[in-house]
Amino acid sequence: MEMQHVLSADQFSRSDLNHILSRSAEMEEILKKGGSKICDGRILGALFYEPSTRTRLSFETAMMRLGGNVVSETDVNFSSITKGEVIEDTIRMVGGYTDIIAIRTKTKGQANIAAQYSPVPVMNGGDGAGEHPTQSLLDLYTIAKHHRIGDEPLKVAFVGDLKYGRTVHSLAKVLRHFDGVELSFVAPEVIQMPTEYTQAGDNVSYDLSSEILQNSDVIYDTRMQQERFEDMEKFREVRDSFIFTPEIVGQMKSSAILMHPLPRVNEIKQSVDAMPQAKYFEQAQNGVPVRMALIAELLKA
Amino acid sequence: MEMQHVLSADQFSRSDLNHILSRSAEMEEILKKGGSKICDGRILGALFYEPSTRTRLSFETAMMRLGGNVVSETDVNFSSITKGEVIEDTIRMVGGYTDIIAIRTKTKGQANIAAQYSPVPVMNGGDGAGEHPTQSLLDLYTIAKHHRIGDEPLKVAFVGDLKYGRTVHSLAKVLRHFDGVELSFVAPEVIQMPTEYTQAGDNVSYDLSSEILQNSDVIYDTRMQQERFEDMEKFREVRDSFIFTPEIVGQMKSSAILMHPLPRVNEIKQSVDAMPQAKYFEQAQNGVPVRMALIAELLKA
Amino acid sequence: MEMQHVLSADQFSRSDLNHILSRSAEMEEILKKGGSKICDGRILGALFYEPSTRTRLSFETAMMRLGGNVVSETDVNFSSITKGEVIEDTIRMVGGYTDIIAIRTKTKGQANIAAQYSPVPVMNGGDGAGEHPTQSLLDLYTIAKHHRIGDEPLKVAFVGDLKYGRTVHSLAKVLRHFDGVELSFVAPEVIQMPTEYTQAGDNVSYDLSSEILQNSDVIYDTRMQQERFEDMEKFREVRDSFIFTPEIVGQMKSSAILMHPLPRVNEIKQSVDAMPQAKYFEQAQNGVPVRMALIAELLKA
Repeated sequence: MEMQHVLSADQFSRSDLNHILSRSAEMEEILKKGGSKICDGRILGALFYEPSTRTRLSFETAMMRLGGNVVSETDVNFSSITKGEVIEDTIRMVGGYTDIIAIRTKTKGQANIAAQYSPVPVMNGGDGAGEHPTQSLLDLYTIAKHHRIGDEPLKVAFVGDLKYGRTVHSLAKVLRHFDGVELSFVAPEVIQMPTEYTQAGDNVSYDLSSEILQNSDVIYDTRMQQERFEDMEKFREVRDSFIFTPEIVGQMKSSAILMHPLPRVNEIKQSVDAMPQAKYFEQAQNGVPVRMALIAELLKA
Repeated sequence: MEMQHVLSADQFSRSDLNHILSRSAEMEEILKKGGSKICDGRILGALFYEPSTRTRLSFETAMMRLGGNVVSETDVNFSSITKGEVIEDTIRMVGGYTDIIAIRTKTKGQANIAAQYSPVPVMNGGDGAGEHPTQSLLDLYTIAKHHRIGDEPLKVAFVGDLKYGRTVHSLAKVLRHFDGVELSFVAPEVIQMPTEYTQAGDNVSYDLSSEILQNSDVIYDTRMQQERFEDMEKFREVRDSFIFTPEIVGQMKSSAILMHPLPRVNEIKQSVDAMPQAKYFEQAQNGVPVRMALIAELLKA
Repeated sequence: MEMQHVLSADQFSRSDLNHILSRSAEMEEILKKGGSKICDGRILGALFYEPSTRTRLSFETAMMRLGGNVVSETDVNFSSITKGEVIEDTIRMVGGYTDIIAIRTKTKGQANIAAQYSPVPVMNGGDGAGEHPTQSLLDLYTIAKHHRIGDEPLKVAFVGDLKYGRTVHSLAKVLRHFDGVELSFVAPEVIQMPTEYTQAGDNVSYDLSSEILQNSDVIYDTRMQQERFEDMEKFREVRDSFIFTPEIVGQMKSSAILMHPLPRVNEIKQSVDAMPQAKYFEQAQNGVPVRMALIAELLKA
């Protein structure tokens, strides 16, 4: 597998995805043994121009578990970029210091610009409304840990804000590489999956039906945001009908998994956390081995 | 000594305290030789939701001196927690990445909640008006370096804001584990030691008398804050009568030590710094070996 | 070479400068081989009380490339110092934790105060309108990589804001240590080089003439800031006449180099970046080997 940067979920072939899944599994074994030193002496530059504790700490931890080190810029207000410097210059500078860069920006397309000018590999840690490819890969890895994806039929239901959620868009695209995957999109009409991400054969639903709950192998929930609705009354009604309680989750198969990119607010009740289907914390944790795999691939370590 | 977390000064028995003192002394020797590698490959997650340069850098340095590494979150305004995530979720996430967590919060009780949900050991780095147990331990260690605590009589005077100072509350509790310790509380009435922390046999005084100055083995000063007083005139008068000048400190025994948790503003004059009694900078520095000892114990390293 | 701190460009003799240049070149070789471990177990304290991504990341990277580790304080608003603590106390604390300190402050003279009180070496990373000596050294190193400074005549033209630019003041002083260096100062009168930094034999010009462009071996450009001008009309006119376009840079000798401390805004067009004279990104990158050399010298590593 030859990979210069990680910029978009679109860049991966099925073979790439399988390779990343397998390398991530190796990294999970390495983690159990206390980590590795294959990136000893290497430095990750973590440029987070939009705050994201989870994603940043996951990248930083991944590099450290490989024996590498990290320099970070997290100051959204005082960065070189806000001083008027163009991202091209910042990236050339940081790329002149470090061996690999993880970048998160408010604006779509910045990671791609960064990659054009960087002398070292760039990983897109989320570019506004654009992409968040490492999230898609850890989502995929989480699914693959619980289901033989591609080798047996897999019903995946996406629930919540499907219109604005980049996580959901990218994961849907990634999943379509595998045979036997059937996708359902469950959301109020105003925040349903844009047609550019749907295909013939997908199921579109405005309600979280018992059928979906009982038949899905994976339910991927996301948060609905108030500001997406014009009618507050409507928002409250819709939001409440999509809350995952123990009763709701109890309808899922015992082998099914409930995922969420986190942070959740109250769309999944804390009382669900101890149920066997609840895999969102494991999902977050999978960010470390998956990002270790990507760093190791990019650095040819 | 079996210890899962460091949450409160109350959790330690006298035997625990002696063990920590002795392990801290070992760590000080290790520091002189350039540090250790017993935590190589391990990661500390430093979550500082309230700023504290001294405490954070001390924890981070301690982990690095043991050969470990650190990921930090110090952005008070943009943390996951302020995005609406409950601390339980943040801790499960960070605990899924790292091997041990140091946390400081604005709100009392947060460190305890963190410990309940964390898959890894949690160290309370100060939870608002609650506890700051690692400070108490480094205070104790500082005293023990200069006096044979428990083996000979020890007169300790607390001076300044005794009502709101969590440092003072916790250290008083810790000191009561040792035989022969006599406590004096020196403060204006409005900020005197709350009765829940006092015992029969303690001395309570509203003035910094010559007797206290001349007889104490340890004077532990803290800052008085203007906002605790209704009467500004009264505040200025009281504050000025509690300022440690070279003349005041000169009345102390040459073997006595003057401590302060820092930062100080002007309650101890800089002209005191070179006097033999002035131990507040050494006290701050002792934070590193003591936190090294705690990290090593918690990680069984 | 005996050096306790790095505080001012004035502290270096010609012999010191030659030693630093030679050690920096060694460090550049070490970087090509993946770094070193000579500072294994050592910790840099990076105190940035004024934001500077470039300078901070360069210091941090330098320490990590030597095998050391870093603790940082970058929170301008919530540092101990803004809590009312004097810098003397902060420095004693951080110097009690770490092995070496890099400090950047808004106020002139703070690095010198820090050095007086620090138990460990202090590197001035910029003290307001004061000094920025590590920048001067990396500037000198960049020039020395392209020209046999001291062994053959060297024409250096400083362009832009020469009145307020500390970079320019310090580099001019450093260059005067070498034989055969001829300096030109090219700036509008209102922001010309202060007479304390000029000497008989220097050329002072208000325009970027073809003669300067064609004859200089080094052109060191800096940004002109609007707020330095009373007359906006005048500012715009002047600014535009100093913009480096491919046409302008094309007049320079092919062996000449164009430098800039960065960040640039639009005083050098991006279309210049690919020209052989453009060395400002290399210049930024040289910050790492030069700071490695300084750290290694100060720690006697």
